[in-house]
Amino acid sequence: MGREHNSSKCNLTLVLYEKQHLELEQRPVPCKPRPNEVTLATHTVGICGSDVKYWQQGKIGNFVVTKPMILGHETSAVVIDVGENVKHLKPGDKVAAEVGVPCSTCDLCRKGKYNLCEQMQFAATPPYDGTLTRYFNHPADFCFKLPEGVSLEEGALLEPLAVAVHACKRAQIKLGDTVLVSGAGAVGLLCMMTARAFGANLIVVTDVNEQRLKFAKELGADRTVVVQRNEFPQQLAARLKSEHFGGRGVDVILECSGAETSMVLAINVARTGGTIVCVGCQPDLVTIPLQIALMQEIDIKGLFRYRNCYPIALSMVESGRINLRPLITHRFKLEDATKAFELCSRGEGVKILIKCMDESQLQNDLGFNGIH
Amino acid sequence: MGREHNSSKCNLTLVLYEKQHLELEQRPVPCKPRPNEVTLATHTVGICGSDVKYWQQGKIGNFVVTKPMILGHETSAVVIDVGENVKHLKPGDKVAAEVGVPCSTCDLCRKGKYNLCEQMQFAATPPYDGTLTRYFNHPADFCFKLPEGVSLEEGALLEPLAVAVHACKRAQIKLGDTVLVSGAGAVGLLCMMTARAFGANLIVVTDVNEQRLKFAKELGADRTVVVQRNEFPQQLAARLKSEHFGGRGVDVILECSGAETSMVLAINVARTGGTIVCVGCQPDLVTIPLQIALMQEIDIKGLFRYRNCYPIALSMVESGRINLRPLITHRFKLEDATKAFELCSRGEGVKILIKCMDESQLQNDLGFNGIH
Amino acid sequence: MGREHNSSKCNLTLVLYEKQHLELEQRPVPCKPRPNEVTLATHTVGICGSDVKYWQQGKIGNFVVTKPMILGHETSAVVIDVGENVKHLKPGDKVAAEVGVPCSTCDLCRKGKYNLCEQMQFAATPPYDGTLTRYFNHPADFCFKLPEGVSLEEGALLEPLAVAVHACKRAQIKLGDTVLVSGAGAVGLLCMMTARAFGANLIVVTDVNEQRLKFAKELGADRTVVVQRNEFPQQLAARLKSEHFGGRGVDVILECSGAETSMVLAINVARTGGTIVCVGCQPDLVTIPLQIALMQEIDIKGLFRYRNCYPIALSMVESGRINLRPLITHRFKLEDATKAFELCSRGEGVKILIKCMDESQLQNDLGFNGIH
Amino acid sequence: MGREHNSSKCNLTLVLYEKQHLELEQRPVPCKPRPNEVTLATHTVGICGSDVKYWQQGKIGNFVVTKPMILGHETSAVVIDVGENVKHLKPGDKVAAEVGVPCSTCDLCRKGKYNLCEQMQFAATPPYDGTLTRYFNHPADFCFKLPEGVSLEEGALLEPLAVAVHACKRAQIKLGDTVLVSGAGAVGLLCMMTARAFGANLIVVTDVNEQRLKFAKELGADRTVVVQRNEFPQQLAARLKSEHFGGRGVDVILECSGAETSMVLAINVARTGGTIVCVGCQPDLVTIPLQIALMQEIDIKGLFRYRNCYPIALSMVESGRINLRPLITHRFKLEDATKAFELCSRGEGVKILIKCMDESQLQNDLGFNGIH
Repeated sequence: MGREHNSSKCNLTLVLYEKQHLELEQRPVPCKPRPNEVTLATHTVGICGSDVKYWQQGKIGNFVVTKPMILGHETSAVVIDVGENVKHLKPGDKVAAEVGVPCSTCDLCRKGKYNLCEQMQFAATPPYDGTLTRYFNHPADFCFKLPEGVSLEEGALLEPLAVAVHACKRAQIKLGDTVLVSGAGAVGLLCMMTARAFGANLIVVTDVNEQRLKFAKELGADRTVVVQRNEFPQQLAARLKSEHFGGRGVDVILECSGAETSMVLAINVARTGGTIVCVGCQPDLVTIPLQIALMQEIDIKGLFRYRNCYPIALSMVESGRINLRPLITHRFKLEDATKAFELCSRGEGVKILIKCMDESQLQNDLGFNGIH
Repeated sequence: MGREHNSSKCNLTLVLYEKQHLELEQRPVPCKPRPNEVTLATHTVGICGSDVKYWQQGKIGNFVVTKPMILGHETSAVVIDVGENVKHLKPGDKVAAEVGVPCSTCDLCRKGKYNLCEQMQFAATPPYDGTLTRYFNHPADFCFKLPEGVSLEEGALLEPLAVAVHACKRAQIKLGDTVLVSGAGAVGLLCMMTARAFGANLIVVTDVNEQRLKFAKELGADRTVVVQRNEFPQQLAARLKSEHFGGRGVDVILECSGAETSMVLAINVARTGGTIVCVGCQPDLVTIPLQIALMQEIDIKGLFRYRNCYPIALSMVESGRINLRPLITHRFKLEDATKAFELCSRGEGVKILIKCMDESQLQNDLGFNGIH
Repeated sequence: MGREHNSSKCNLTLVLYEKQHLELEQRPVPCKPRPNEVTLATHTVGICGSDVKYWQQGKIGNFVVTKPMILGHETSAVVIDVGENVKHLKPGDKVAAEVGVPCSTCDLCRKGKYNLCEQMQFAATPPYDGTLTRYFNHPADFCFKLPEGVSLEEGALLEPLAVAVHACKRAQIKLGDTVLVSGAGAVGLLCMMTARAFGANLIVVTDVNEQRLKFAKELGADRTVVVQRNEFPQQLAARLKSEHFGGRGVDVILECSGAETSMVLAINVARTGGTIVCVGCQPDLVTIPLQIALMQEIDIKGLFRYRNCYPIALSMVESGRINLRPLITHRFKLEDATKAFELCSRGEGVKILIKCMDESQLQNDLGFNGIH
Repeated sequence: MGREHNSSKCNLTLVLYEKQHLELEQRPVPCKPRPNEVTLATHTVGICGSDVKYWQQGKIGNFVVTKPMILGHETSAVVIDVGENVKHLKPGDKVAAEVGVPCSTCDLCRKGKYNLCEQMQFAATPPYDGTLTRYFNHPADFCFKLPEGVSLEEGALLEPLAVAVHACKRAQIKLGDTVLVSGAGAVGLLCMMTARAFGANLIVVTDVNEQRLKFAKELGADRTVVVQRNEFPQQLAARLKSEHFGGRGVDVILECSGAETSMVLAINVARTGGTIVCVGCQPDLVTIPLQIALMQEIDIKGLFRYRNCYPIALSMVESGRINLRPLITHRFKLEDATKAFELCSRGEGVKILIKCMDESQLQNDLGFNGIH
């Protein structure tokens, strides 16, 4: 017997079998947690663009789905069981789960850059399973207990917020900096709000979509600028500088659109000695005026997920520096997950959440204790 | 009379009138130095690629020669007069001159990034005159006294060495780092030697020219690799990693060739979390696999001359950490400067020096004191 | 004639002749501004503890008043004349004046650490005159134009705010950090508010004075703790950690009291790897458990004024991240400056301002233009 | 059977039972290595001051020997068995063992500051056993394979060298810096040589012991200065600055003596904006002129062992930047370990090594493979 849970074998799970082939199926409930592990009952999972891309294309770059994989990684959950040595968590605790587990022993892990670990096991990145499932086991030290006042829905959004935090850390945004955010999707909006929390003073957001920019304004952008389809990025850069940045270059550009033209814009709009952080994925090959950046010592930096960002993201939400709730536009039950993916793939909504928990089952799992 | 020197009006000077039109002519000897200034008698000027380019093309990027301009900026000299308030120099002192004078009051100057000052007056960058002249005045605090044991020829080479120092600082090279230097011209060789002084442990140099690589080896490269004209940079990257870097990516790439293919190489050969510093000028537009760098958090940084690097460069030479002498392949008198430019433009030699001093005149200038 | 102003010779000035000997007297109006200089009509000067100390003791450390010196350095003003080359200011502009002028040419200035310049000429630090005078000339690039919405009174307080900004920069306060501010005087309060703007999440303020702590709470401290006179700092540290910091050590301590016991507290309360920044002046000799800090890699850093902090301070006020107005408790006319010093020396008030401007005279100075 | 080694039960071990009570005894050979572990046959262990202190006093600070503990932590060894998943090592490999094992999951470990981990299990720090034993198991990722040309004796000395590397990293020593090393014991000498490898240009070493200084000079100190017992540290600081540092303050002080007077010296001799790193342990309470350091922004930093330093230390030895061999003054067999401790406690020698290996037994362990 030993390492089995007493709960029923009912573990509803969303599995991507191959490109465009999703199945909802019952999977076994995980074994009892090993030392330093906890068993989690998933509460909320946000859909990320990468989830949709795996569904639609079966791969992202070199990561290819070659066997059935559970999707989902923006995750909050309730602890239902704790393994040996787990001290900071107990059944009933609400947590946000950081769902990338590095080796902890390689050179990069030892130096604190664990997100770059070559042995990283990241949820819903082939071949590792994601969290769109009712129960899973996870290392306790990658579970962050949600304090009073932070909801489980906010907990799920700590994941994309952690990306934005890492972007702003990479950009070394400081009090008083001017910032351009190119692209007002969910990640762009989070970057905009996070840049504010990091001290940015003047934040301008650009996008081709006016509706998104209107939302960006509501969420706190100082100014928004519609990108005209027929405007050269050099022209747009000149216009941004003269009309919005007091004739000066911009301290930090957070490029969130993934468009090659946005890179050209970023290089032309940055101030001498400024920084460009690319949050969006650029095409495999880009043609850019790199030398303009080089000779002005404008640093170009990319981003791979995040490291050591959950505590900061959590503190931002707890302290009220950032309000994630307005980003949530849709909610679906796990049973309706496919509908959520369809809606997301049409570009509708900002953050779409999938609610995984079967509350009555959870009460059963937790006995009389309930959720703490 | 006041601000005139007692020396004769003989001030031989190399003037670029326009593209491909150099003239040796007599110019007036400068006035007496103002407060905080010194009058210098030029001793040695190294020819830089930019000097040759201004001569051949009349411009570099946006810098266009629109009126006669004196060439030359790699400069050593002897102090022949000092203005008020000058305390650390006296007539007869041998100095290396840092010949870019920033405004000292703008935001970037105040923060210590004076090389990025928009008001920078840099010798032999239009419209500012260079130092291929027998006498000129200069701010005393940009003159670095050469200690016993550092020659005036070495003093002139502190300028390109300062570029290499700034490159290694930008790259944050640390003890034990692995380094790839792409391009074995004068700057590449200086970068290679400087990377060693910064602590690099394994330095590999690439070039298309075997002769240059042979010289790189003599100067201390651990390994050299000939770039085959028909080899894709991705292949070369794989070959470098497997054959020379123990199967791993490279910590730091100092790109000194200015070739687009070298950027592609750099991106493919860098380690996760590594750094690429572009020392050579890239073409106006480049097509590169930027996303590969972004998703591995490989930072791409450019370089604009140097800041606060002369003291370090000088200490490297004084302490013997670097030996600049083998780089000097040719010497010409100022009277023969045109020949020097012709030789340089044929790609011959490594460092070509122009000797500007008229020793007997200098003895006259300095009276009985002589050179200290 | 040339370099004289047309305004009358009425330049009321507060001069410290020697310890406890202040005189209000007429001084000549300054000459016309030299290139890169402006003539300022002083509007508001805040009294700093150092002004009071020079008045009471005639010296601070090695700085001794040996000849008459004008007091005051927390300064806002209106531009009434501009010298050649001044581009960013015109008569009528309201400015905050950064009143320490470094040499701009030494090693430390060049590296951006100009506050440490050995040639620094700082207002009201012997032998340099301060700003409690109606008119003075000042380098234009150390005058920061106040935007719409920032008052001249706030402008004067940018100086102590710049100290707080420098403290938080030295402490490298980041989003989510926990902070202890020991000492709730004007500087302590500014440090507390600035730490918040830098992202501190939990800020605890300690003081022996309950009244001050009440004020700290109003200004945004999360918690305040009265220091009991008979409590050992080790005990207080333990109490702070267990009752206020969740059983953990504190990320950053901003020591603003200058008490030796507060240093002992700071060392005992800091987290492993934390930082102590000493804003207050410690006694000449202190007896402290240094080894406790050393073996936990708790860095101990001091503070000398500020560098590159005015733009940040100004952006904080302009953006509303910090509200300086509640700190202003008293205002005096320049004619009543002595009363202001007496009140300040009794420890009353928080920020006491001296209003220097003779408005009708200023209108005269500015002609029809008025204040912009 | 399972997890036992086939080798005999002969595992000679030096055990500290309590203060001044050492025993050589046979301990069981360790079990087969677990996954990610290796079994090591100890080759050489250097004696550290802390080993001697535990022997003489039974405690260091809060670390108290309350049950029998094996001494020794400066360790090289030969791999005799590898557990599952171990890829970079095989039986016969020679390694240096980093003998502190952190939890790898706490906040400080995740951020790369694993030396500050509160769960650290460090050899020969109560209650954890050291390495003065013939066989022990160790995590493979804390074993650094010695390349051709680095001996096992040098491998043992990587441990104190790692301390020196961490000191120089904490001090951020850069090319051209001036350095004072106070104290010329083994750690001081290693710091001196490491500072050179980091780029220090002028290194002055002080000590009360002329013999040690003579040795420092042989090992590469630029200058050495005998500390006179009756000279005030302020006087010594003035003398050092004027006679040895060209009238200037020192960039970096590496305080290796642990004397309170050396802290006073360090504070008085540092340049404005300089750094003091305390490598030696100071007394529990010190009386120092802290304010002098504070107002000059001289940072004071301590040291707790090292992190991520073994690879750097190894690269220094492999590349010949540092030669550890002259430091080795005595060698003892494990059977004579007590004699080694006695000699060390008399202050004789620099590095005293204990040779733990029973070569014939090892051949047996390794079978025909031998040492690689």
